[in-house]
Amino acid sequence: MTGLPDRYSAMMISEAGAMPELVERPLVAPGPGEVVVRMRATTMNFHDLVNLKGLIRGPWPRVPMSDGAGEIAAIGPGVRRVAVGDRVNTAFHPTWLAGRPTPARKRHILGDTCDGCLQQYVTISAEAVIKVPAHLSDIEAATLPCAGLTAWSSLREGACSVGDVVVAQGTGGVSLAVVQLAKAHGATVILTSRSDAKLAVGATLGADHLVNTTQFPEWHLVVRELTGGRGADIVVDVGGSTSLGRSVQACAMDGTVAIVGVLGGFGGAEIPVGVAMMANIHLVGITVGSVADHEDLCRTLEVTGIRPYVSHTLAWTEMPEAMRIMEANEHIGKIAVTIP
Amino acid sequence: MTGLPDRYSAMMISEAGAMPELVERPLVAPGPGEVVVRMRATTMNFHDLVNLKGLIRGPWPRVPMSDGAGEIAAIGPGVRRVAVGDRVNTAFHPTWLAGRPTPARKRHILGDTCDGCLQQYVTISAEAVIKVPAHLSDIEAATLPCAGLTAWSSLREGACSVGDVVVAQGTGGVSLAVVQLAKAHGATVILTSRSDAKLAVGATLGADHLVNTTQFPEWHLVVRELTGGRGADIVVDVGGSTSLGRSVQACAMDGTVAIVGVLGGFGGAEIPVGVAMMANIHLVGITVGSVADHEDLCRTLEVTGIRPYVSHTLAWTEMPEAMRIMEANEHIGKIAVTIP
Amino acid sequence: MTGLPDRYSAMMISEAGAMPELVERPLVAPGPGEVVVRMRATTMNFHDLVNLKGLIRGPWPRVPMSDGAGEIAAIGPGVRRVAVGDRVNTAFHPTWLAGRPTPARKRHILGDTCDGCLQQYVTISAEAVIKVPAHLSDIEAATLPCAGLTAWSSLREGACSVGDVVVAQGTGGVSLAVVQLAKAHGATVILTSRSDAKLAVGATLGADHLVNTTQFPEWHLVVRELTGGRGADIVVDVGGSTSLGRSVQACAMDGTVAIVGVLGGFGGAEIPVGVAMMANIHLVGITVGSVADHEDLCRTLEVTGIRPYVSHTLAWTEMPEAMRIMEANEHIGKIAVTIP
Amino acid sequence: MTGLPDRYSAMMISEAGAMPELVERPLVAPGPGEVVVRMRATTMNFHDLVNLKGLIRGPWPRVPMSDGAGEIAAIGPGVRRVAVGDRVNTAFHPTWLAGRPTPARKRHILGDTCDGCLQQYVTISAEAVIKVPAHLSDIEAATLPCAGLTAWSSLREGACSVGDVVVAQGTGGVSLAVVQLAKAHGATVILTSRSDAKLAVGATLGADHLVNTTQFPEWHLVVRELTGGRGADIVVDVGGSTSLGRSVQACAMDGTVAIVGVLGGFGGAEIPVGVAMMANIHLVGITVGSVADHEDLCRTLEVTGIRPYVSHTLAWTEMPEAMRIMEANEHIGKIAVTIP
Repeated sequence: MTGLPDRYSAMMISEAGAMPELVERPLVAPGPGEVVVRMRATTMNFHDLVNLKGLIRGPWPRVPMSDGAGEIAAIGPGVRRVAVGDRVNTAFHPTWLAGRPTPARKRHILGDTCDGCLQQYVTISAEAVIKVPAHLSDIEAATLPCAGLTAWSSLREGACSVGDVVVAQGTGGVSLAVVQLAKAHGATVILTSRSDAKLAVGATLGADHLVNTTQFPEWHLVVRELTGGRGADIVVDVGGSTSLGRSVQACAMDGTVAIVGVLGGFGGAEIPVGVAMMANIHLVGITVGSVADHEDLCRTLEVTGIRPYVSHTLAWTEMPEAMRIMEANEHIGKIAVTIP
Repeated sequence: MTGLPDRYSAMMISEAGAMPELVERPLVAPGPGEVVVRMRATTMNFHDLVNLKGLIRGPWPRVPMSDGAGEIAAIGPGVRRVAVGDRVNTAFHPTWLAGRPTPARKRHILGDTCDGCLQQYVTISAEAVIKVPAHLSDIEAATLPCAGLTAWSSLREGACSVGDVVVAQGTGGVSLAVVQLAKAHGATVILTSRSDAKLAVGATLGADHLVNTTQFPEWHLVVRELTGGRGADIVVDVGGSTSLGRSVQACAMDGTVAIVGVLGGFGGAEIPVGVAMMANIHLVGITVGSVADHEDLCRTLEVTGIRPYVSHTLAWTEMPEAMRIMEANEHIGKIAVTIP
Repeated sequence: MTGLPDRYSAMMISEAGAMPELVERPLVAPGPGEVVVRMRATTMNFHDLVNLKGLIRGPWPRVPMSDGAGEIAAIGPGVRRVAVGDRVNTAFHPTWLAGRPTPARKRHILGDTCDGCLQQYVTISAEAVIKVPAHLSDIEAATLPCAGLTAWSSLREGACSVGDVVVAQGTGGVSLAVVQLAKAHGATVILTSRSDAKLAVGATLGADHLVNTTQFPEWHLVVRELTGGRGADIVVDVGGSTSLGRSVQACAMDGTVAIVGVLGGFGGAEIPVGVAMMANIHLVGITVGSVADHEDLCRTLEVTGIRPYVSHTLAWTEMPEAMRIMEANEHIGKIAVTIP
Repeated sequence: MTGLPDRYSAMMISEAGAMPELVERPLVAPGPGEVVVRMRATTMNFHDLVNLKGLIRGPWPRVPMSDGAGEIAAIGPGVRRVAVGDRVNTAFHPTWLAGRPTPARKRHILGDTCDGCLQQYVTISAEAVIKVPAHLSDIEAATLPCAGLTAWSSLREGACSVGDVVVAQGTGGVSLAVVQLAKAHGATVILTSRSDAKLAVGATLGADHLVNTTQFPEWHLVVRELTGGRGADIVVDVGGSTSLGRSVQACAMDGTVAIVGVLGGFGGAEIPVGVAMMANIHLVGITVGSVADHEDLCRTLEVTGIRPYVSHTLAWTEMPEAMRIMEANEHIGKIAVTIP
């Protein structure tokens, strides 16, 4: 346990809606099967924004932020999966190791049901950390646990393959990861956004077609036109109530709409049920993925050399500013937060 | 061509909304690859009711009714798939022979885009007829092309297997076929209906749990309770706008909601998008199935000895009465119509 | 930790090829995430026979036997998956929790790479025990970890469903479980054996067709004949070098041969590669399954009420006799060993 | 039918083992649902070589060669799938339109069970022709029906995706197509051959690793080393009896060995059955694919701009020389034959 401090700093939320505040905590040695990760960076997801606003139940006080990257600082007895010094992610769902989603596997989310990543050290099961590709910086690696893996799982659920057409909505972290990963699968990508400047970033990441939804609010018709009337094989829907109906209408027969976000609000979403039936659309809810899926993602990033896109990097004392940026929708891809 | 008459009788709709009227038509010899089927029975689906009301575009005049059973009366040159005398169904989609649905494969529906089954003879590609199980009467066999196959495809799309829990909604033709076929797959079946008398019929076909939705309008909560909170693995949704939201809520994590009907109307259906996402629900639109799927269904019926349930059998001159029964929801399972 | 003794008895193999001998060992309290299982029964697989003969490398001394059933005697800190008193199996691969097989997940086998089940108490991760169906005796439950789960996984790999034809070879533990589970999936079962007496037992468990391979050494031709020339959808091959070629020839186009055993020896098996290619056969190696698969199996047994077949039950001091019975092929289904 | 000649030239085999000889035949107008294709090129597969040697039963005399490309010269009544002038392939299995392989779907092979492509005109069902990508020459397009589609189906059966490792054996037409298509899927490709010159061609097509099997006869060990001990996700085996055992040993746990050829002879192939079982290998026999698969292949070629590799192009009077080249193994990729 040489090298581990007795105490370390964490940013802790005292109660629902409070901002994270710096606290000092004792650091205990990892138990059997556990590791201690020295966190270097985290990134913010819409889900974290909701959490920081106090809208997600769970134990208080707690350390927020589901995503993190750093290196193994210590390993407990019996750990062989990783070694001290390995650069790793922590898993979004630390208890979902592999297989299909089940309530038991998804019962924990870092930052929601237990302490998250906005702290210098995280103690966690060795089964719940994933080695990150060597070519990624800590900040880049910190984009993977939620946004990167959600994009990956969406494409896997839709069996994305060469020749497919994929629609990514907007230029948030999931959507830009969809652009990059879909290209790696050999797909053609249609990217939508209200901003030409943001679309231009998407183009540099490989998007084949750019659709400004301010100019073309009926973007699903543009997708139809771009595909010769056929529609897209996979639409990754991030809006929910504000977009799901159009996503169904943008989808090719027997295609897949991945439901990955509720940016449009937590209410219901209306879908054209006759269209969904007649066109044999598959709508499927995606919640991130398993540790095994995360490993598959990392293997693909290694092979392809893909680097996630991060538009803003802030200090961990600047969480309110990070929240403001996301709420103002100023970011492109991810907002990262470094951990000192 | 011995034995084929020169002329035969058909019930023809002259224009949108007109009732079928008896006409005489010449019977021509089957061309290469074609067969002539002597129709003995048809059955009515909700889809046929809509068609009989004139609400489905297509060529007029035309012979209505998508489903039919009879025997091969003649075969054209080169036909080896069936022989004269074979008892067969015609396919709902005569151009969807196998594989996943595509617009080209689904471009035809008997009774909609071309002449249907309410006639003494149907001339059709030999690839589009399916031998029916010997233990079924013509009337029973006539339930398979649309209702039976829709039930089959729904269970296949949800990968129904032993130990699964399946929800069938109401006691129409699809739903009662779901009851029978799900039991054959080793599943436990929960059947809903507003009528205890109809539920009692479902019980005789194997339904394990009966839920009266007049008594329990929040039937999805009953499904949760019956499954120890887990939800159903497969929910076959026939209502669309009036039921889809509850179907999602009745579904287990990673389970499937098969969208097979729009009995609740042709508008949109609101789904709880957060639930669909968090519970990783698969909603999938089903439109009947292919000839190959139809053959698989028949093979299963042969092995299991399942006999579809028909509550009413009418003469083909009684189409208005058949429509009235369906609109009044008096039927249980299928309404059959014999062809003289 | 009330109620746990300080010391307990185990049957330990001192070195390769030695017979298990009674030893006393200290019992320590379960660590975090661990449970202590009071073992009540184990059953013998061919794999255990090989192990008892000293042919499987691993640490010596060790406690043999991969399969076990008993009840939870104590739980360590943080365990919520099971409670004291729950009747459970231990997992064949305690580190394969879910998902597809990987070397990491399969790195441990009870009795091979670590202590097995021939002892009064087993201390193991709570993630590696599975609640067993209430209707099973301890002895019956002890048949599940290897034989039951291998049968289950074979049928799942072949996507067994209603109307399929399944071939089970011989009347060992895996094959009789295949008979029972295939019937639960709605399949037709063809059972082969050299013994009419053993076939008669298979018939009582549901086998539809019985083929005496002494009488019909070309049993694959009998399978062809019984299936109208089509072949079986799934053949569960237990012999390897002595049977795999015929299994391929017994298989229907696009069917599956599950490779689950090497009863015929550890050498190579010759397959008719032209037949395998032309008939699009899938041969797939099965090694038991994951904890999640084991849970699915148990859920199915609960729903169906299936009870595994055990022909011999011995005391744990009678291991040499258990070995003799298996080598003499006197058993039908499983040989069980009780733990005092 | 303007523009169709009354008579046309074909190369016909009079009896088993005879060389194709020029004959003149009458050209009849296409029947309902049929098209007439003006053939421009064919290519030779190992299967054609066997056929030209007279080793494949079927009707004599017949026109050999399964693969062809040309343009639609005439369409029969009711044909809407293609138009005169469309550049098309004929299908290897003209009766396998879609779905999984069945004996009925695979009952015909051009050149074997009916006349093939070594003729100026082929009359065939409109359902059995496939539009070819515009960027391909006739000769390039003529590589698709057997070799291209076999490669495609192998990768699809193994669910090839980004990050996978694929082994292609040798530099024949299937193997070089595997190289190109696997790269389009985002896979890493290991190519084996006895010739450095041939490997160099494979490298220009994208192969990542080249293994000279004269230098490394234990090539499976090289695959293990190149993959860090893991093995390949997909091995496309073309040798059968001479290679299948090593292919199994080269394969990663849960990976796929596609059995696509019997270049090593028609006898049995020995596989290490213990390895296949313990490593959960999937061996699967591939026979080309369906018309729908062929369409998917063409769509991918269009999107990726892949051009098949042809090392030799001969006149149709040079069939003996084409046979000699293949037997001498002088070719790389495909041997094409033009049709005047």
